Amino acid sequence: MHWQPKRQAALSLHTQIVTWFTDNIRSGDFPPGMKCPPQRVLAVQFGVNRSTVHTAMEELQANGLIESIVGKGTFICADPWQALLSQPKWQRYIDTSIHKPNMDTIQLINDYEQRSDMIRLGTGELATTLLPTASLEQSLAHITLSPRALGYSEPQGSIALREALCVHLQKRGIHTTPRNILIVSGALQALQLIALGLLERGSLVFHEEASYLQSIHPFQSAGMQLLGRRLTQIDKPSMQAMLQTRQGVCYVMPTLHNPTGYSWSEAEKQTFYTMCQQLSLPIIEDDVYEALQFDGTSIRPLKANDRSGHVLYIGSISKALSAGLRIGWIVAPEAVIQRLADVKMQTDYGSSALSQAVVTHWLTSGLYDASVDTLRQQLQQRARYTETLLHMYLRDVASWQSPTGGYYIWLRFHEPVIQKSLFLQLIQRGVLINPGYMYQPNDFHHIRLSFSYASEAELKTGIQLLSQLVNEALLSPKKKRPD
Amino acid sequence: MHWQPKRQAALSLHTQIVTWFTDNIRSGDFPPGMKCPPQRVLAVQFGVNRSTVHTAMEELQANGLIESIVGKGTFICADPWQALLSQPKWQRYIDTSIHKPNMDTIQLINDYEQRSDMIRLGTGELATTLLPTASLEQSLAHITLSPRALGYSEPQGSIALREALCVHLQKRGIHTTPRNILIVSGALQALQLIALGLLERGSLVFHEEASYLQSIHPFQSAGMQLLGRRLTQIDKPSMQAMLQTRQGVCYVMPTLHNPTGYSWSEAEKQTFYTMCQQLSLPIIEDDVYEALQFDGTSIRPLKANDRSGHVLYIGSISKALSAGLRIGWIVAPEAVIQRLADVKMQTDYGSSALSQAVVTHWLTSGLYDASVDTLRQQLQQRARYTETLLHMYLRDVASWQSPTGGYYIWLRFHEPVIQKSLFLQLIQRGVLINPGYMYQPNDFHHIRLSFSYASEAELKTGIQLLSQLVNEALLSPKKKRPD
Repeated sequence: MHWQPKRQAALSLHTQIVTWFTDNIRSGDFPPGMKCPPQRVLAVQFGVNRSTVHTAMEELQANGLIESIVGKGTFICADPWQALLSQPKWQRYIDTSIHKPNMDTIQLINDYEQRSDMIRLGTGELATTLLPTASLEQSLAHITLSPRALGYSEPQGSIALREALCVHLQKRGIHTTPRNILIVSGALQALQLIALGLLERGSLVFHEEASYLQSIHPFQSAGMQLLGRRLTQIDKPSMQAMLQTRQGVCYVMPTLHNPTGYSWSEAEKQTFYTMCQQLSLPIIEDDVYEALQFDGTSIRPLKANDRSGHVLYIGSISKALSAGLRIGWIVAPEAVIQRLADVKMQTDYGSSALSQAVVTHWLTSGLYDASVDTLRQQLQQRARYTETLLHMYLRDVASWQSPTGGYYIWLRFHEPVIQKSLFLQLIQRGVLINPGYMYQPNDFHHIRLSFSYASEAELKTGIQLLSQLVNEALLSPKKKRPD
Repeated sequence: MHWQPKRQAALSLHTQIVTWFTDNIRSGDFPPGMKCPPQRVLAVQFGVNRSTVHTAMEELQANGLIESIVGKGTFICADPWQALLSQPKWQRYIDTSIHKPNMDTIQLINDYEQRSDMIRLGTGELATTLLPTASLEQSLAHITLSPRALGYSEPQGSIALREALCVHLQKRGIHTTPRNILIVSGALQALQLIALGLLERGSLVFHEEASYLQSIHPFQSAGMQLLGRRLTQIDKPSMQAMLQTRQGVCYVMPTLHNPTGYSWSEAEKQTFYTMCQQLSLPIIEDDVYEALQFDGTSIRPLKANDRSGHVLYIGSISKALSAGLRIGWIVAPEAVIQRLADVKMQTDYGSSALSQAVVTHWLTSGLYDASVDTLRQQLQQRARYTETLLHMYLRDVASWQSPTGGYYIWLRFHEPVIQKSLFLQLIQRGVLINPGYMYQPNDFHHIRLSFSYASEAELKTGIQLLSQLVNEALLSPKKKRPD
């Protein structure tokens, strides 16, 4: 193999590699069943980055020419001829399609989360030990299904669940009717529906400076522009100027914000709401962590005081009961709900009737509230323990606010050490983190440290290792400079 | 109320009505709590269509200025001032947003299906008496939930379900691996994911002349162009010419097609597949009715002979077990599945874990196969009974093929009598149909008659009434001409 792709050629390096492989297979030089060299070897031979080889091999695999067998390696397919003749160029289809791929860092996190031996310091999910699996399994015996439930859903979702939610939401100070509620498959779907059903292409989506919204793509994939702002100290004239030519919407989490865990004060909420009223600017209020305030639910949502129908309110049982049930809701003016219900029916014909029946049972039987009470205490204990570890291992290099609920501590390192290289080093050592740059471009100061997922032992090992690698990075600043 | 909107004005009629109402509310002429005249009265006063008044009232309601109280009427809101000052113009947001609204006829069908007194001759869903509600409820007691199941899903869905599907799909002649399967929330979501994750804007989506695809909008809303063709007798050169400048894909249902109920012959499938190979054209094969072939499953899918990875195969339990569970699957080359899984994770973080656990249990325990066997017989009986009615009431004005499975008879009227006016007349008499023009623009010859939903008594009453109105329409041809 003395061939190398040409850097000055019209075709990209990986396409040249794909073409070279394909030619060799067609000519019979690389016969069916032949084992390919490992990617790192090919990278050296071709004089290219390993990621270039990886991309080429993915395309060859998509084209049906090579196949990977776990634990054995990569081989030329047994019957590549058929594929050579006619197969659709799947990789081209993928590359030119509409939806953005997940950020590279997030795809890596998704992949490594499948491995049971990783310590997951960033996971925004409850540990299996915190999930009420046994009670949920037992409760299934008490679920009554109406025959209608097994058919296609009503457009807005189960009426029994919407009625139960009206009662539930009163505890949050929200007084609403079933006609103002749409059941969705989790908060992320709520954002998708709003993007497709309420906003025009080119709309501006304002969010807080560090925001969960940066790590997902419902709005960007629909052609909207994200703008991070300090929304509680907003520069109103500049927003007003932008909104004269573009439609806009604000996405906020005033209660237990993801990733920071902070909550807004009453004054901040009032200022923000008044500004949105003056600008006629709709508000998307994401309230999925509300049940997890350690002191009960003392902080009320914007929606509780929304007298002018500005707020599209999003809630969910994913954070306090089970993410796997995939049930959330939107509360909004009726015309908005009807529009979003129509789009939802066109998207997936409604959410799982079974999940809806289970959530209805848990809300109306009191199981939900009891379970959340327990969970809140457990999370508070975990938060305290995690803070103890932070004091032990990271107090000299980082600072943080004590969490008042939820899953997260927004850990700020004094130096910008949370680079992608550190993220990758930690993966090699078996630890997964959610770096700040997932939530705010070029933020290399923060980690979203989650105390909801890893065990106490894992938290200790993980934070110790994090401390060690951060201190090494601080001691060798030259490493960060290119040669 | 002597005011009338001006037909020659720059603003549309309904916007003039909205402005007029708003001005009167602002001035205090229409005080809070005032009852508005009924829409039909307003239509006469304004000299406009009732639908124009309806649109205006919807916008006023969305703007928070009026409210409807069921059984009482429409009123000026108790506190319209706040709304007047600042409320977002929701109707404008809706009108300028991306996703297409459902076709007017379909929105009407969705609305009227919520009423229990309608006879539903078009519903593509199982009657509640055909659903295995009791066994499904009982089976819940046997569901075992792994603690992981209650958290967020693996990107491709439950591995247990994907393994069960590999076994299940072998009966269809499809030999695949869990890595080639993505679990989705029903077949419609599969189409959404393919639209967003594989196709570029402007792609051509070929489908059969009458097609279910015309009644939904996943592709059109993503900027793709639908083209109805007789795909089994295709004009290859013209397709080739179109595909030189545009990306393309074919959407087909070779087994028990929706809406016609027809299945392709082996020769038709072979011809079509070969053409797609020659054009390197991917195939979306929608196989959701496969389990409902009256003679068992004698017709094999294209996917069973897909040696070159052309076919994206879509299946579901919605038609043979329960639509409310919202579980379907895609089988495709691995690179395609990984891409679609990534988009799905960005769309809704996976399908209901509970629904997935239930479907796994039903597939592996044999409950599914047993239930489908019974269902098939029941559907066949219903099909026979429906044909008897057609012979009695419609044989002189319409023709049809005997169904070999599924839910539908594609009833063809000799004259183009299935106009929107007939559809509306039938609604007024309590009968809902799915007219042919939902599936093929300007098709006024067909009805998709469903024998899966209405009871025998309802089928009889409904078909009698259909016969009566069709015959009336045939006798008064002048009615169809404008005056």
